[in-house]
Amino acid sequence: MKQLSIRTDRQEEFVDVTALVAETVREWSSSAVLVYVPHTTAGVFINEHADPDVARDIASTLRHMVPEGLPYRHGEGNSPAHVKAVLVGNSQMIPLENGRLGLGTWQGIFFAEFDGPRRRTLIVAPLAELPRDAP
Amino acid sequence: MKQLSIRTDRQEEFVDVTALVAETVREWSSSAVLVYVPHTTAGVFINEHADPDVARDIASTLRHMVPEGLPYRHGEGNSPAHVKAVLVGNSQMIPLENGRLGLGTWQGIFFAEFDGPRRRTLIVAPLAELPRDAP
Amino acid sequence: MKQLSIRTDRQEEFVDVTALVAETVREWSSSAVLVYVPHTTAGVFINEHADPDVARDIASTLRHMVPEGLPYRHGEGNSPAHVKAVLVGNSQMIPLENGRLGLGTWQGIFFAEFDGPRRRTLIVAPLAELPRDAP
Repeated sequence: MKQLSIRTDRQEEFVDVTALVAETVREWSSSAVLVYVPHTTAGVFINEHADPDVARDIASTLRHMVPEGLPYRHGEGNSPAHVKAVLVGNSQMIPLENGRLGLGTWQGIFFAEFDGPRRRTLIVAPLAELPRDAP
Repeated sequence: MKQLSIRTDRQEEFVDVTALVAETVREWSSSAVLVYVPHTTAGVFINEHADPDVARDIASTLRHMVPEGLPYRHGEGNSPAHVKAVLVGNSQMIPLENGRLGLGTWQGIFFAEFDGPRRRTLIVAPLAELPRDAP
Repeated sequence: MKQLSIRTDRQEEFVDVTALVAETVREWSSSAVLVYVPHTTAGVFINEHADPDVARDIASTLRHMVPEGLPYRHGEGNSPAHVKAVLVGNSQMIPLENGRLGLGTWQGIFFAEFDGPRRRTLIVAPLAELPRDAP
């Protein structure tokens, strides 16, 4: 299990962590990888990272769905960030074969900051395939 | 694999199951834990459990996003509950190290009831890390 | 790890892949199964597959939440499909015991096409339970 450090620079920011995660798991022979965000106003999702406009459209649609102006009760003023973290999720599972992430051609892994800028943590954990000779 | 029993008392209710799950996995040496909801109008999510207003804001925003008044076709009248279950998801993965859940400081695990009150089931399953001497 | 082939016939279509996945894992003794979609305009979710109106209501509510008419920037015109893929997620974990999926009574697995028709891939990967005699 590895803890990676992520630094975000804006209030809302999707950081492409694909290369960082790929490098972390390169020598692991596990069957899948758990990418886990231990925060409540940030998440992680997998989607296109070729055209940066896709991530921008995801961010703007989330703002449309979770408007700032609803009558939120949480006193810190960052309720939309909590809701968005729940919607995208705070973990992703990715198949791994011979140290290579099983991402599709267009897929990248994005750390989704919804209440930055902050110093954040990303956990990457290996998960085993069943041993062939197991009982 | 453990089956836990959850009882919900209201139509919509987020039950904090963090302590229940933590106690269940306390003697497991697995690498991660799968928390799985085998229902179609309930889910499970991870977010702040210090201030209960955060969970309330999540619930009210989901009601804003998935209004009761849309022209639903499903005859049972609980389509919003099905949609919300899909949005928050019906499972979560959490890292585990020496029997300790890898939750962040502010994170709690919520069983999300969207069509209660009911008696519900929560499945908790251990997942292995790769043995160090594996082929 | 198995790669299954899925063919979708419409622009938006939820394909019930429950039987296909169940057959794939029937002889696996793993503890859980990862169902993974390596695409960026398709996803996978678990919900009721008894009444097909539930899936229709999920589809129509997602269209309500992610309208076609927002000012998207991505030039290919399929931004709503990308957003919906993020919202439902591109993977699911399901408990497995003696080759039997731990789905609840009403649960089915849906491959969610949001930008078809296309030929698609679905990856199914076994994950191990901790060996009993592990250190």
